[in-house]
Amino acid sequence: MSLQHAQPISRLIQELSRLPGIGEKTASRLALHILRSSRENAESLSRAILEVKEKIRLCSRCFNLADQDLCRICQDAKRNQEMVCVVSGPEDLMALERSGGYQGLYHVLHGVLSPLEGIGPQDLRLEELLSRLRGGKIQEVILATNPSVEGEATAQYVSQVIKPLGVRVTRIARGVPMGGDLQYIDQVTLTKSLENRGPI
Amino acid sequence: MSLQHAQPISRLIQELSRLPGIGEKTASRLALHILRSSRENAESLSRAILEVKEKIRLCSRCFNLADQDLCRICQDAKRNQEMVCVVSGPEDLMALERSGGYQGLYHVLHGVLSPLEGIGPQDLRLEELLSRLRGGKIQEVILATNPSVEGEATAQYVSQVIKPLGVRVTRIARGVPMGGDLQYIDQVTLTKSLENRGPI
Repeated sequence: MSLQHAQPISRLIQELSRLPGIGEKTASRLALHILRSSRENAESLSRAILEVKEKIRLCSRCFNLADQDLCRICQDAKRNQEMVCVVSGPEDLMALERSGGYQGLYHVLHGVLSPLEGIGPQDLRLEELLSRLRGGKIQEVILATNPSVEGEATAQYVSQVIKPLGVRVTRIARGVPMGGDLQYIDQVTLTKSLENRGPI
Repeated sequence: MSLQHAQPISRLIQELSRLPGIGEKTASRLALHILRSSRENAESLSRAILEVKEKIRLCSRCFNLADQDLCRICQDAKRNQEMVCVVSGPEDLMALERSGGYQGLYHVLHGVLSPLEGIGPQDLRLEELLSRLRGGKIQEVILATNPSVEGEATAQYVSQVIKPLGVRVTRIARGVPMGGDLQYIDQVTLTKSLENRGPI
């Protein structure tokens, strides 16, 4: 950052630039916005940042982000208590919630298997998932890890570990995305979408 | 925002979404990043936000952002004291500083003339610019407002007000941007670049 800025501005630009996907130009724009916004708005952003660090912990049942012992979803008696959707991280849980297409519970692994990064089964919240399943209430586990090499391998592994428990295990469908254009879609996706074709 | 998030997360996502160009998805990603980063990093971001509101004021000479009576640029004796570049806001000043192509002083108008938005000459830091010029030290004023309708009108107006003072007034060149592709550049820009052609 240029030394020509007043120090508090340089510092804020530098702090904002650390956020993922925020370059120096965007950081400058955000810093000027904060500078121009009301003192109240700046204070409430500043407070929200601290609060998230102070108050957020992991749900003791599903390991979703929570501000109490159980997360909002686990507390919600209206959710289907017999289905568990396994995701690798809270961002994927958020994406599924935004879709509005799922009404069951979750289990957040907090990672995927990755031999290259030294992440093995013991680093995921797998033992805890098995305990939940041994409880006997859950009828179906939906594996919703990413359709990437690691995500697929993790889904494979989890399904093998779960099967002996006699719980139904499914995997989210892989195929052509809505609004996609067949000519630009990769071969593996196309092959999957043909293999997994269904009646219309 | 979904009510299924723990409240401190929803609040942070909401606060971050207020920033310009940050939608809910980006805000969620940033919030998770903050949640995962060290407590120290979160505190220093939070502090930088407050500090900018507390410590930043306008330079008493050029109205750039400053943390003292004079901004860093006005304090810098190595800058050319005989040139003043007039910009509409601090973001344009920052962009020019990033370019590294200018070594003189600035004057920040904090706006452009806009009859539609009811912004007239009295709303800009124009009287203060005239006072600086009457000081007699400045030899050239470069008008660096945006090449937009308002920017051009503002440059026209400022040049007319300055001319009686006998100071040289110039306007930044308008033409084809470096790396641009002639076939995609608008007609007005092309016409300007022909009119303002120069020897190579």
